[in-house]
Amino acid sequence: MSQIIKIKDVAQYLDQEVTFQGWLYNKRSSGKLRFLLVRDGSETIQCVVFKGDVPEEIFDDATKLTQESALRITGVIAKDERSALGYEMQVKGLEIVSLADEYPITKKEHGTDFLMDHRHLWLRSSRQHAIIRIRHEIIRSAREFFDDRGFTLVDTPIFTPNAAEGTTNLFETDYFDEKAYLAQSGQLYGEAAAMAFGDIYCFGPTFRAEKSKTRRHLTEFWMIEPEMAFCDLEKDMQVAEEFITHIVKSVLKNRRNELVILERDIEKLEKIEAPFPKIHYDDAVEILKKNNIDFEYGGDFGGTDETVISEQFDRPVIVHRYPAAVKAFYMKRDDKNPDLALAMDMLAPEGYGEIIGGSQREDDHQVLLDRVKEHNLPEKAFAWYLDIRKYGSVPHAGFGLGIERTVSWICGLNHVRETIPFPRFMNRLYP
Amino acid sequence: MSQIIKIKDVAQYLDQEVTFQGWLYNKRSSGKLRFLLVRDGSETIQCVVFKGDVPEEIFDDATKLTQESALRITGVIAKDERSALGYEMQVKGLEIVSLADEYPITKKEHGTDFLMDHRHLWLRSSRQHAIIRIRHEIIRSAREFFDDRGFTLVDTPIFTPNAAEGTTNLFETDYFDEKAYLAQSGQLYGEAAAMAFGDIYCFGPTFRAEKSKTRRHLTEFWMIEPEMAFCDLEKDMQVAEEFITHIVKSVLKNRRNELVILERDIEKLEKIEAPFPKIHYDDAVEILKKNNIDFEYGGDFGGTDETVISEQFDRPVIVHRYPAAVKAFYMKRDDKNPDLALAMDMLAPEGYGEIIGGSQREDDHQVLLDRVKEHNLPEKAFAWYLDIRKYGSVPHAGFGLGIERTVSWICGLNHVRETIPFPRFMNRLYP
Repeated sequence: MSQIIKIKDVAQYLDQEVTFQGWLYNKRSSGKLRFLLVRDGSETIQCVVFKGDVPEEIFDDATKLTQESALRITGVIAKDERSALGYEMQVKGLEIVSLADEYPITKKEHGTDFLMDHRHLWLRSSRQHAIIRIRHEIIRSAREFFDDRGFTLVDTPIFTPNAAEGTTNLFETDYFDEKAYLAQSGQLYGEAAAMAFGDIYCFGPTFRAEKSKTRRHLTEFWMIEPEMAFCDLEKDMQVAEEFITHIVKSVLKNRRNELVILERDIEKLEKIEAPFPKIHYDDAVEILKKNNIDFEYGGDFGGTDETVISEQFDRPVIVHRYPAAVKAFYMKRDDKNPDLALAMDMLAPEGYGEIIGGSQREDDHQVLLDRVKEHNLPEKAFAWYLDIRKYGSVPHAGFGLGIERTVSWICGLNHVRETIPFPRFMNRLYP
Repeated sequence: MSQIIKIKDVAQYLDQEVTFQGWLYNKRSSGKLRFLLVRDGSETIQCVVFKGDVPEEIFDDATKLTQESALRITGVIAKDERSALGYEMQVKGLEIVSLADEYPITKKEHGTDFLMDHRHLWLRSSRQHAIIRIRHEIIRSAREFFDDRGFTLVDTPIFTPNAAEGTTNLFETDYFDEKAYLAQSGQLYGEAAAMAFGDIYCFGPTFRAEKSKTRRHLTEFWMIEPEMAFCDLEKDMQVAEEFITHIVKSVLKNRRNELVILERDIEKLEKIEAPFPKIHYDDAVEILKKNNIDFEYGGDFGGTDETVISEQFDRPVIVHRYPAAVKAFYMKRDDKNPDLALAMDMLAPEGYGEIIGGSQREDDHQVLLDRVKEHNLPEKAFAWYLDIRKYGSVPHAGFGLGIERTVSWICGLNHVRETIPFPRFMNRLYP
């Protein structure tokens, strides 16, 4: 066996003999030739077995290899202009590590339920590879953005005693002698941490027990949430647009091949550059009217509304100053119109809907206490949160970016279920 | 108001007038002088108000400022050789953003329960800052290690239908018409992903409903878990020691000041360099005997045992090949002695106990199926996991690093409860 290398590094080994360890992705036979498409997780390469080049048992092994069988394969690297990779292997040796049973996922069209039941295997396809790699790059670059700006990572708890927006959509568990709810946001804790560290972010899974089967909802999804002390809504929106620009540029730079595999319209992504259009809620409502959408002023936007609004722009659009009545209790009101909350949502282009939700937070103790009471929230459970306004309260703001919706948009997928390795939604808990 | 800067950047502004936004950490008065210790989350600086230099109302404001009041403070940066930072501010202007109520955390000794009840405020102390910043660096460098080596991030699910090691220590929740358990490891999913991507890691919170109050246990803790295809126990141990070396070196390089604040013995950390000693379980038992520890051969090590073993070495020690009976069902047995599992635990020095647990995984379908039955695990729930051995099974191995125990060791803390911003343990769900 020669030096074992990863397929992605093949360009450094032209005309040299190397070994790959991987799996048979596909096979073609033609007379005295066996074309083995081998993947090792880093890349995929064609390995050509010519009957005259190898001992008879090697050729027989190449013939009997089934899809997804594991193997070690040795040969010389040659140029291959026809392949995307640019290289192929002329095989000298082959060792079968394990022969696979008949693989359940074939070239024929499978239904979504079947593929989801086989998600542990489906992840091996080149399309799923591309999506998960882009997801990784989105997460890496998102952390990089905040790390490079001096934000402190503050992991917020999953088990929480209180519920920022009511308990109906929360997963509940017994916590020794109490009830705990799984966090649907780290924001409240992020606010406390921002008073300690100035600029912070949290990043982890969040949970919502929604009984809805839409293409935008999961019960378990990942969110990155910055929170900034001494920050108002304007600066909050500015950080959000720079953040999204950084993520898109990182994917374009580091995962362009994967976008090509997904047949993503890359030109559309190349237009994403801060500043983004920022429109008042009232202007957004005007857009809906002009497009003959039946919408009652004062409500929150639904999926279709978001699509119509976002389609007016070639980059993400930020809608700000929503009616306070449809937004969370902790949002600060607009000085100029107390019926409006200093909230902002960022809608992705091409109808991908909301990817960011944020706001400036109420920083006055008495006003916030009144809101807690208005919303019938348990005052005792929120005592620590109210404390933040008693000891050095400052204007502060933040937002949350939903990772799966962002992956969905950047990859150009029409459903979030493929944006996470093992998706969880209503009635989907397996594998 | 002059240019607003972060205190950490103060060296660039010598003799210039700047503004800080932050909180009053401490105050001293002496005649016509007010010494305000101001923190802004990035650093802490002494700001000197001289009565003759400022309007009377500014001096009065400086006098009435309470601990943790929020403020904007303007002045000229001067050298101050006596302070750790090396600079101080000669104050020209002061704006009180909000006057804090009497701060509950004072210089006197508080009990742990009191501090934990006020965790949202306690996080503002310089000691907690140092710990959380080191935690951030450990997490950053851990991801960097795997990202730089071409590992793919594969977030594994929190909601799981099956339980790798029984359900007694699991948190349970209603999941629509089913029961879901909160994952205590992403490993099984990581194995499936390793067959797709070769080298992967997952990183997220994990959960264990342990009714134990020890200094090493939390109910909610973060774990990073690499899994590698075509990897045996030897390579697994090698990756683990390189990984820990990288983390320790990153903290020494980027968070040395914080280690000094914590009065950590830095020399001990500077000795951490791969390779680490690797000893067989039998040798570890010998060490216990030599130290007159009452230990029955065949059992797993308890906290005291781990301490005694680790104290023999000046760097982490890896103990390998444990009795299979005390290890998980999915571990591969040693060819040379099938009573032993190809398991390894890494024990931190100075008695900090296990920080890594790992193993080579059983890759034979029939053997694994037998183990599932032996352990009375629900075969149906594990069908997908068994599939991995049907379709291209390969030798594979991985490990998990517990973040909180690693923070505890590197920071030199005697309890894990300070290693995470909002700790969760038995009877602790607030704030």
